[in-house]
Amino acid sequence: MEQVKLYDTTLRDGMQGQGMSLSAREKVRVVKALDALGVHMIEAGFPSSNPKEEELFDLLAGVELRSAEICAFGMTRRRGVSAAEDPALATLVSSFAPVVTLVGKTWGLHLEKVTKVSREENLAMIADSVAFCRDAGKRVLYDAEHFFDAWRDDSGYALECLRAAASAGAFNVTLCDTNGSSLPHEVAETTAAVAAALGSEVEVGIHTHNDAEVGVANSLAAVREGARLVQGTINGYGERCGNANLVSILPALQLKMGLDCVSPEQLAGLTEAAHFVAELCNLTADPDQPYVGRNAFAHKGGMHVAGVAADVRTFEHLDPAAVGNERDVLPSELSGRATVASQADQAGIELSQEAAVRALETLKGREHRGYHYEAAEASFELLLRREAGEYEPLFRLESFRVITEKREDGRVQTEATIKVWVDGERYVRTAEGNGPVNALDRALRGAITDRHPHLAHIELTNYKVRILDESHGTDAVTRVLLDSSDGDREWGTIGVSENIIEASWEALVESLEYAFQPDKRANAVDRADPARQA
Amino acid sequence: MEQVKLYDTTLRDGMQGQGMSLSAREKVRVVKALDALGVHMIEAGFPSSNPKEEELFDLLAGVELRSAEICAFGMTRRRGVSAAEDPALATLVSSFAPVVTLVGKTWGLHLEKVTKVSREENLAMIADSVAFCRDAGKRVLYDAEHFFDAWRDDSGYALECLRAAASAGAFNVTLCDTNGSSLPHEVAETTAAVAAALGSEVEVGIHTHNDAEVGVANSLAAVREGARLVQGTINGYGERCGNANLVSILPALQLKMGLDCVSPEQLAGLTEAAHFVAELCNLTADPDQPYVGRNAFAHKGGMHVAGVAADVRTFEHLDPAAVGNERDVLPSELSGRATVASQADQAGIELSQEAAVRALETLKGREHRGYHYEAAEASFELLLRREAGEYEPLFRLESFRVITEKREDGRVQTEATIKVWVDGERYVRTAEGNGPVNALDRALRGAITDRHPHLAHIELTNYKVRILDESHGTDAVTRVLLDSSDGDREWGTIGVSENIIEASWEALVESLEYAFQPDKRANAVDRADPARQA
Repeated sequence: MEQVKLYDTTLRDGMQGQGMSLSAREKVRVVKALDALGVHMIEAGFPSSNPKEEELFDLLAGVELRSAEICAFGMTRRRGVSAAEDPALATLVSSFAPVVTLVGKTWGLHLEKVTKVSREENLAMIADSVAFCRDAGKRVLYDAEHFFDAWRDDSGYALECLRAAASAGAFNVTLCDTNGSSLPHEVAETTAAVAAALGSEVEVGIHTHNDAEVGVANSLAAVREGARLVQGTINGYGERCGNANLVSILPALQLKMGLDCVSPEQLAGLTEAAHFVAELCNLTADPDQPYVGRNAFAHKGGMHVAGVAADVRTFEHLDPAAVGNERDVLPSELSGRATVASQADQAGIELSQEAAVRALETLKGREHRGYHYEAAEASFELLLRREAGEYEPLFRLESFRVITEKREDGRVQTEATIKVWVDGERYVRTAEGNGPVNALDRALRGAITDRHPHLAHIELTNYKVRILDESHGTDAVTRVLLDSSDGDREWGTIGVSENIIEASWEALVESLEYAFQPDKRANAVDRADPARQA
Repeated sequence: MEQVKLYDTTLRDGMQGQGMSLSAREKVRVVKALDALGVHMIEAGFPSSNPKEEELFDLLAGVELRSAEICAFGMTRRRGVSAAEDPALATLVSSFAPVVTLVGKTWGLHLEKVTKVSREENLAMIADSVAFCRDAGKRVLYDAEHFFDAWRDDSGYALECLRAAASAGAFNVTLCDTNGSSLPHEVAETTAAVAAALGSEVEVGIHTHNDAEVGVANSLAAVREGARLVQGTINGYGERCGNANLVSILPALQLKMGLDCVSPEQLAGLTEAAHFVAELCNLTADPDQPYVGRNAFAHKGGMHVAGVAADVRTFEHLDPAAVGNERDVLPSELSGRATVASQADQAGIELSQEAAVRALETLKGREHRGYHYEAAEASFELLLRREAGEYEPLFRLESFRVITEKREDGRVQTEATIKVWVDGERYVRTAEGNGPVNALDRALRGAITDRHPHLAHIELTNYKVRILDESHGTDAVTRVLLDSSDGDREWGTIGVSENIIEASWEALVESLEYAFQPDKRANAVDRADPARQA
């Protein structure tokens, strides 16, 4: 089987999508999940002196990946300076990333109207920049921006640009449909012509966008004509209508076109990986998403259900288990009893048959109310622990009260008072905070760290709020996801309520409860990151 | 130019999508919108004795359409009865619809495993049913279910089924990729073979699903190989991952493939039609939807904005006006003074040179603090209005206080008290709510609707919370986006603060302030509905 490499640009091009934002630590979690999925190359962005990007590359340098290569992304050198004088190229080669991806021009119109660079100078910019990075020990991928527009305009010059990159030592030239203007037959014809012209000189890649709703088809068409590297993003995130969706491209290549991308076990992690990245981006996973959506294998029409009962092939295009999805079930029930049992096992919880059944019932009921445990594995473990009878409550709440006031001078103040019982003793504590949840957290810690001083060191690293059924306005249900860390390990908890304060409180309490469960620490480290579960 | 007919099945196959439901009267509105868009054939469903369907066909019989034909949908006759004895066929031919669409089998596996009908009997069922409807004066379209699976299994028999329909008088045989299993190259090869085999005997149609995220590409591939009728749904609604999306197919056929479907004026109504159907179905229009989404022609990255400014072709695959959409240069740091000026102009605000400079400074400062005006155009307009000196405050806040209490019985209660001055009078109001923001909203409305009763009707339709720099945990900055509606128009506002209550308050106040600005309503209507901007 021929191999096709997956090149993920969720962290760079995907972040151009509206409202997309991930912290450096979240990006590291995405990288781990992509690595576990078997993605071959991961574009992390430009390793600039911008503190956030610097932090990301610093963190990534310390991460051990199974097989994925990190790519640093930048542009060909500026006009009028040598590659060695270009500070951006210097930054690129000084990063730890073994691969440098350089984007450059190929289209006359773009050179004339936008960059005002001559065609000759552009070729020199490409060659110099690739050679510079190659000489610095990097493997270099050349992203040919606007390639398909360029090809329609002047295929000879477009090819010269690719040859300039290839001759200077790029291992791959990727044809970019930057505007998303092309249709599959055009991508097929152009890729075939490029592959024929370049022969075995250099590997060809494809990078498409979804402006004509054919981003996936364009990628597949290019692979059929010889491209051996596909760039895309998880769930198709990206500017305008998004990038080519790797989540749909991977199973098509592997299950429908018989090409080799990842192992079957890795492919079975596709649904989980897609949902995990959606969760991290605080986006709702699209229920109708091909392959991994909750509805992708749901059967509604009576005729279809009967067909599936008689022979699944009549209404299913592939086995949902191959991509980690399941027939006709909510993502809640994705797990099923076997999964519940195996998750308990992983966490070192003794779960009887009956307790597993109860846990599944509880899980279903809670998911129906808006709970979602994919990014809240600590809350899920607590749920299992309660059903197993292995749960020790950290404290008993008597009451709390939070007051937020905006005063005449415009200042806003928040104060929380809580009354709790810890180890048989009653504690009343009041604390201020810069918001109601922060104030509650401080008051609660004030009360319990007297008895449990180690809980003082737990940091709330991440706090996300999602309004479910947003069309209800401010009386909708609120879901809060909280990530915590004790320095060694990270864990996620969840709270759901009509009242955002109550939802936050629930997530906060579960976070501390989880940290308090004494004997399960070793397991917890692994469970905290779904990327490690594959 | 060769003509390709659009065949819409939103009202039949589209209704199989999760949560889809339209009343008979709403379906009539969809039919009128499709007719205005130039769709050639509209499948309305089975004209059964079911009261809702009966009402629909009764209503449709009285509607005058410009050019669209209504199609009644049903199955080939049952096994073992003559066509004349089949009550469903009798219902079909008795309807007013000039076209009858009959779905029937073509795949051996399906016949053996599900319907238990012999191959010969199946051919007779097809031929009899088509002939019966044709003899009753109908034009008959044959939907060949599972055609591509059937072709892979036994292309000879699959073709026999089509020939049975054609010989019996069907004007069209439509190849259905019922499971959505096929990729574009397979659809292309199969359609080419079918078109070659059938010659000019009968028109070929295509009906695809989006299970592999290539529904649109499959339709286009079939058209390239000879199909002259495309079935699909508006916005790709439908079971599992949806049907082929006519909203993306139409502009590709007409603007990219040079085929003749509808008039340019009708095509310019595409965005409005797509949003209209979404509205009727009570679904949020997908902002990233190709061609018609709010983000489809949005430019965010600095490089892209500069490119678009130099030559739109560099980052736009077609003129957004051709499909009734509009270029959206996002109000962001990157876009600069020209954008501020053009946005002020659009909103009817007189902004001097100096005010524009100030507005840009304010914008930059606010974006740095976490404001983000992409989805908060009302807040952006208020910002411009303040700089232009055209701003009338609705009220003056003296103070507010929100208390959330969790009591010993576990119940959570929230109460807000606000003190404001409206038109020189002081109002003190207290209200309960199911969360702090809801309580504040109620208290504030209680105070101001005394003077401004029309503000009581404003509904908060959407409330989103995003924690910026989430890694700070609960003391991070919170961004709240609020969508409001007065029934006619929708607008978005934003609030940013370390305190979620304060951020929500700001968005809430801006929402009411915006509604209160009296003289710009006409403009606001246009700005709020991208469909009307063409």
